[in-house]
Amino acid sequence: MGLWDIDKIEYVGRGNGPVEGLGFQYYDADKVVAGKKMKDWCRFGVAWWHTFDQELVDPFGVGTARRPWDGKYSDPMDNALAKVDYAFEFFQKLGVEYFCFHDRDIAPEGETLRETNANLDKVVDKIAENMESTGVKLLWNTSSLFTNARFVEGAATSPNANVYAYAAAQLKKSLEIGKRLNGENYVFWGGREGYENLWVTDMKREQEHMAKFFHMCADYAKEIGMGAQFLIEPKAKEPMTHQYDFDAATACNFLRAYDLIDTFKLNLEGNHANLAGHTYQHEIRVARDNGVLGSLDANQGDMLLGWDLDEFPTNLYEATSVMWEVLDEGQIGPHGGLNFDAKPRRSSFAAEDLFRAHIAGMDTFAAGLLVAAKMHEDRYIEDLVANRYSTFDSGIGETVENGTATLASLNDYAIDMPQSKILESVKPDHLEDVKATINNYIVDALANA
Amino acid sequence: MGLWDIDKIEYVGRGNGPVEGLGFQYYDADKVVAGKKMKDWCRFGVAWWHTFDQELVDPFGVGTARRPWDGKYSDPMDNALAKVDYAFEFFQKLGVEYFCFHDRDIAPEGETLRETNANLDKVVDKIAENMESTGVKLLWNTSSLFTNARFVEGAATSPNANVYAYAAAQLKKSLEIGKRLNGENYVFWGGREGYENLWVTDMKREQEHMAKFFHMCADYAKEIGMGAQFLIEPKAKEPMTHQYDFDAATACNFLRAYDLIDTFKLNLEGNHANLAGHTYQHEIRVARDNGVLGSLDANQGDMLLGWDLDEFPTNLYEATSVMWEVLDEGQIGPHGGLNFDAKPRRSSFAAEDLFRAHIAGMDTFAAGLLVAAKMHEDRYIEDLVANRYSTFDSGIGETVENGTATLASLNDYAIDMPQSKILESVKPDHLEDVKATINNYIVDALANA
Amino acid sequence: MGLWDIDKIEYVGRGNGPVEGLGFQYYDADKVVAGKKMKDWCRFGVAWWHTFDQELVDPFGVGTARRPWDGKYSDPMDNALAKVDYAFEFFQKLGVEYFCFHDRDIAPEGETLRETNANLDKVVDKIAENMESTGVKLLWNTSSLFTNARFVEGAATSPNANVYAYAAAQLKKSLEIGKRLNGENYVFWGGREGYENLWVTDMKREQEHMAKFFHMCADYAKEIGMGAQFLIEPKAKEPMTHQYDFDAATACNFLRAYDLIDTFKLNLEGNHANLAGHTYQHEIRVARDNGVLGSLDANQGDMLLGWDLDEFPTNLYEATSVMWEVLDEGQIGPHGGLNFDAKPRRSSFAAEDLFRAHIAGMDTFAAGLLVAAKMHEDRYIEDLVANRYSTFDSGIGETVENGTATLASLNDYAIDMPQSKILESVKPDHLEDVKATINNYIVDALANA
Amino acid sequence: MGLWDIDKIEYVGRGNGPVEGLGFQYYDADKVVAGKKMKDWCRFGVAWWHTFDQELVDPFGVGTARRPWDGKYSDPMDNALAKVDYAFEFFQKLGVEYFCFHDRDIAPEGETLRETNANLDKVVDKIAENMESTGVKLLWNTSSLFTNARFVEGAATSPNANVYAYAAAQLKKSLEIGKRLNGENYVFWGGREGYENLWVTDMKREQEHMAKFFHMCADYAKEIGMGAQFLIEPKAKEPMTHQYDFDAATACNFLRAYDLIDTFKLNLEGNHANLAGHTYQHEIRVARDNGVLGSLDANQGDMLLGWDLDEFPTNLYEATSVMWEVLDEGQIGPHGGLNFDAKPRRSSFAAEDLFRAHIAGMDTFAAGLLVAAKMHEDRYIEDLVANRYSTFDSGIGETVENGTATLASLNDYAIDMPQSKILESVKPDHLEDVKATINNYIVDALANA
Repeated sequence: MGLWDIDKIEYVGRGNGPVEGLGFQYYDADKVVAGKKMKDWCRFGVAWWHTFDQELVDPFGVGTARRPWDGKYSDPMDNALAKVDYAFEFFQKLGVEYFCFHDRDIAPEGETLRETNANLDKVVDKIAENMESTGVKLLWNTSSLFTNARFVEGAATSPNANVYAYAAAQLKKSLEIGKRLNGENYVFWGGREGYENLWVTDMKREQEHMAKFFHMCADYAKEIGMGAQFLIEPKAKEPMTHQYDFDAATACNFLRAYDLIDTFKLNLEGNHANLAGHTYQHEIRVARDNGVLGSLDANQGDMLLGWDLDEFPTNLYEATSVMWEVLDEGQIGPHGGLNFDAKPRRSSFAAEDLFRAHIAGMDTFAAGLLVAAKMHEDRYIEDLVANRYSTFDSGIGETVENGTATLASLNDYAIDMPQSKILESVKPDHLEDVKATINNYIVDALANA
Repeated sequence: MGLWDIDKIEYVGRGNGPVEGLGFQYYDADKVVAGKKMKDWCRFGVAWWHTFDQELVDPFGVGTARRPWDGKYSDPMDNALAKVDYAFEFFQKLGVEYFCFHDRDIAPEGETLRETNANLDKVVDKIAENMESTGVKLLWNTSSLFTNARFVEGAATSPNANVYAYAAAQLKKSLEIGKRLNGENYVFWGGREGYENLWVTDMKREQEHMAKFFHMCADYAKEIGMGAQFLIEPKAKEPMTHQYDFDAATACNFLRAYDLIDTFKLNLEGNHANLAGHTYQHEIRVARDNGVLGSLDANQGDMLLGWDLDEFPTNLYEATSVMWEVLDEGQIGPHGGLNFDAKPRRSSFAAEDLFRAHIAGMDTFAAGLLVAAKMHEDRYIEDLVANRYSTFDSGIGETVENGTATLASLNDYAIDMPQSKILESVKPDHLEDVKATINNYIVDALANA
Repeated sequence: MGLWDIDKIEYVGRGNGPVEGLGFQYYDADKVVAGKKMKDWCRFGVAWWHTFDQELVDPFGVGTARRPWDGKYSDPMDNALAKVDYAFEFFQKLGVEYFCFHDRDIAPEGETLRETNANLDKVVDKIAENMESTGVKLLWNTSSLFTNARFVEGAATSPNANVYAYAAAQLKKSLEIGKRLNGENYVFWGGREGYENLWVTDMKREQEHMAKFFHMCADYAKEIGMGAQFLIEPKAKEPMTHQYDFDAATACNFLRAYDLIDTFKLNLEGNHANLAGHTYQHEIRVARDNGVLGSLDANQGDMLLGWDLDEFPTNLYEATSVMWEVLDEGQIGPHGGLNFDAKPRRSSFAAEDLFRAHIAGMDTFAAGLLVAAKMHEDRYIEDLVANRYSTFDSGIGETVENGTATLASLNDYAIDMPQSKILESVKPDHLEDVKATINNYIVDALANA
Repeated sequence: MGLWDIDKIEYVGRGNGPVEGLGFQYYDADKVVAGKKMKDWCRFGVAWWHTFDQELVDPFGVGTARRPWDGKYSDPMDNALAKVDYAFEFFQKLGVEYFCFHDRDIAPEGETLRETNANLDKVVDKIAENMESTGVKLLWNTSSLFTNARFVEGAATSPNANVYAYAAAQLKKSLEIGKRLNGENYVFWGGREGYENLWVTDMKREQEHMAKFFHMCADYAKEIGMGAQFLIEPKAKEPMTHQYDFDAATACNFLRAYDLIDTFKLNLEGNHANLAGHTYQHEIRVARDNGVLGSLDANQGDMLLGWDLDEFPTNLYEATSVMWEVLDEGQIGPHGGLNFDAKPRRSSFAAEDLFRAHIAGMDTFAAGLLVAAKMHEDRYIEDLVANRYSTFDSGIGETVENGTATLASLNDYAIDMPQSKILESVKPDHLEDVKATINNYIVDALANA
């Protein structure tokens, strides 16, 4: 049974009651849906930090996680190397083809960055071997510029130039690792880039520093021939009072202002969307409309709670909306995937719960894909939307879209139109039917999955 | 086709795509589920104010509603009387057996309360006739102690004794109407009972006034032989900054403090639950545990928005959780029902949307009932919960429940227990499985509906 | 005493207890603070809609306002014309030099836009005369593209081309009025530009329509020689689920994407900032950093409530932070002012409360100005911030700012730096002292006002 | 200079700009205000966990705190004992007379509870000696029933009887320590008593267990002659999705339902109030009105953030409202105090910041006391409120309060009253004046402090 004492997870098909055993109910990796294999639509990835490092702490309690390597290794490097074995067996048993990690997830820090990098190299060697032998790929890597105490006031926006330089040096190594492991994307999560107190913050100077940091990274990647897609990951707040990558639109404004819009795309997350006051679908749509949809961190929040829950996704409504956007886009992003920035609940502390949670998450997105694909097949939303805006396809509406309209021409059109005639031309949206229809698609598509 | 130009709504069964025409997909009134007819589990009610009075205004826009009686009547009493016909035809075409109203929904105010009451009597006469001839019943009535400018600082908690007296006089008439129409419940929504500014508010004196008000009402109901169940309807805020019936637990505390806990039960609402920071299921559970579940206002909110949306319910998760609580309780309440405190969206302004919206709402709760019934049949939650707490069924746990345990006896039990042994005895909850299981029940129960 | 039966409001100086009578405690219009008269820093404006039209309704109650013109005029045009007199007397008695209005605030709509425009012309004539005779100026005007039922699904983003054309025609007239009255700014509040339901919304097509709308407006203003500064007013939500001008950063992204960033600036509001999850100071800072601070809608929200309160500002912390940003900027905006998008509370319904509320609001910003000016004079924040970032003024930090740094050069700098040395170089922020210091400035500056 | 290398903090009086050095600006311990010494109104307490244990971690970063004992002790017991010396020197230098702690703050756990208790005894011995020699008193102690992994699913509401028994045994020891150290109160914070997922939770059974737990504790305290006031500390959420002690009203309902209302009072906290959607003043008023105000945890939150910040209080509005309630009550509670459940910000990591933060917090409450005392002296709120409700002092209002009114008698009074007469009798609240007045009191009272 291997290190995890668990068999490979297979597709078993939809059950009709309590989940029993370990098996996929909807995720059938090679099944073709809307012209592509499920696995190619989803490109699921496992997050190293949640699955292999997270001890299920919370601000009021210590870790509860029970893991097969607990207590086996006293030396941190031994532990780090051993986890590589656990990780790749986990990927294979789960049947995911991608993973992602922060530099500090995989190896301990040394006294200097040089020592830290040496630690990293040893673990990266072993990861490279495992990638080679298993075919599992790196969806993205990133650098932790937030955990260490030096980053208390920021990294690329730290008021301290030493910290800035240190962060840049970390990034250099991290980009080199990304190149070596053929990472398809490279993520920047700016968890400390923002402020706790605006009074003491020179926001403009900090953002200029951040922009220069990003340009340096892009230059270096080009220099070394590292071709990963760069991704910013918006989050509104937590740990900071305000984070500069607040949401998709805010990130786009920054990218446009500093001439980075062609270099970066976005890595979006459902729970982060909620913290900014948005739905996940909204954030994806904003990114699509701005041409910067890059990849997806998959999890769910609880809208009655104000912090980052990183719960494994199980909400069929949200998964359907996400996968509908993906289908409409044709892909998640040029190199994007769905990586689970998610952890089992603190009371789901068994090692086996890591499998259960990933299965629930993968099944949920697979289900969302099935529902969305059925909707697409019927062109339900497409036709409804096309019809809704059809007055812009010809006549006065067409003059708006083709640029020939002016306030004067539209005034001529409207000036003597009776109020009643205008009102009559406004058609109801029947929004209650739309919501009932989505329920129908969920039940029908999944019942027949 | 009658006044509404719409045929009676029939059960047509589940569709598998866009909602077409008007028909119930899940709600089959006489179908027996878990030992009772669907209609007897649900006891759906139509809310007069939303369906016959609401013009679909919002704080930034005038009404958009298009109704068949628009512009037909210049005299308010003629309009009020005509709406009775529209209302009862609506109830019958929709197949609901209950309705509810505020006094001010059905008739205009006069210069004095005596004149207002005379207006009321005329409309109530006509309603009584229609109830007699159609068999439609009154789920509850209530008195609007919030719309008129006199209630700007409260009604039963107004700092002005004239207003208090006026409110009491309104209530007297309203209770008499409840008796005459055999209302099964009588609701108190204290939308103005609370404060905008705590500094100028004598909260204790106000609550004492409110308690006396309730006692007077109970005394008068007894005096006239009016047997309706009295219900408080919690809401946290809006229009006030803080409302005294904040949530179920707060209402219970008030009822206990003022010796009203045996006289009142609660009328709970999903959107109100959210405004207090709770799920609808939570509020229902709190009411059940306190023995005060009375009736349900059915609607849904949007947890990203901070005001009362009164959206027709379409969320299958929420409906399942609500109906599970109802099934577990055996009924909604002794005389409770599900009335739609809900309005179509402002852009669903067609008269027909009133039907579409009610159908969507009724189908959603019917679907929730079907899913919950399947879960109950399998005893899924029951067994899971029984097992989770089973250590209290015997041994040391039993001594806690039977009252023989003391700190000393429990100390003797625990004082030398190794930490590792305690930890081992804690079993994981597998919460991700629970959520995946509920998804299974939704798909399975509805696919086979 | 005139129409309002109230004397001109004078500066009376700070009291030391309950507010008595009507007089300014801090606002001394001609007093020079930080090199400019108070009135020139503040440029206070009265909002027509709240002061002369708002009846103090809320979603659960009718109007409570008692106004001197109540019941005097049966013809809407007579009422509209009379209010001009009340308005200008109000401005003068209060001593404000600016006002602002929506087209629909000042005159009723007719059966066609031509008729509506004729109504408008009559009132605008009278307003022009009053401006001439009193010297009161127009801070900005705008067009209500949200109240009328035709705008239920949007105006510049309506899916209906008739509505779009009608909105454009309204704008044409509104720009002409702005020109005629020498409005210093022209505001666009897109209260209906957004969505209630994303599924039925083609967000990209809608935003393209909105961009074309703005370009047409800019073209027409240029054509007629109307030189007012165009302003977008961000608001996150309410009435819509999501509004496209969500916050300052989102608005900037839109303006950049559609080549409007040089044409528009922002009109920011405290209560709107809160609805987007921000402080007012944050939104002003974002606008400043993006070069688009235009003008300020002054009010305050209640962060425990989720809707637009439009409360008159009384919070000294918020006013201090706003005026500090204004002082640091040198002005509110090139033509900006502080207009009160604020209404007295519903229980402050007396006509006199309109004065009380404006006095409280003006005094609050005057107080904020005094506190901020003292802080500026001492260069408290300036020095603290300059010192905090001083490591970027020379050495390795300077190479970052002057563009000579690369990841490689920064890596060389950091690679062998011991962790402890880095940590030592991080200096504490002493944030508790900062907050205590601001308290000191409030007390000291106001005590000596 | 002692262990902390800091001089005793003295009262230096109000400054007028940046805070310099370490000294109290408002807190003058022996100054008599409203008939009592400042120190007797405030009874400030230091919280062991934040000041001596908290390393300033957050969910995304490790500790940043720099403390004088860092790295000095390899043995946990040596460290624990050494901290007693640091603690008592801290109390004395700061001039606070109270402290509070959880059992697990002061000593490490052993393999069994017996071992843990032995560890505790050693530290408690040393604490007792220091209390004796310094006169510093124990405001309250409590037991950590939330940090250890065993409490992942609750303590007194754990579904596991072993955990329940262990928690009870911990409590037994903790009550004994409270008795030994003459703790004036004993606090129960139920951070794990609630649910993460309602589906798997038997809320009623859990609350019954919790009630039995509290009764056992009360019985044992009585048995051993431990006379501390028992306190429940409400918190709405975090770490749990819902906590049973949601807010003051919810806690009161529980206490009434389980016959504990005479045994317990409440320990309220500002940040917790906000998480429940309330102001701190609201929670204190609710407790007062229910006769259960016990003690106060002093800190402040950020209403734009959804988690527990535990920021040191600096908001003069909040402090004024809190101290007004305390003055109106005559005391915080029979044995209550103001303990700082607060930690310096993560970037205020210097040891000295512990002093700065406490000074800021103590000064803020001292300032609040001064402002509130001036308001009380003037009877500003008292008179305003008395006048507002004066219609209940005689006439029809008096019949309501003296219990002679009935619906019938009030109906007789109101039935023929013209609407206009009622409306006229409603008096405006002038709420904008109230807010401006509070500003006046803040400036005036503090300027003359």
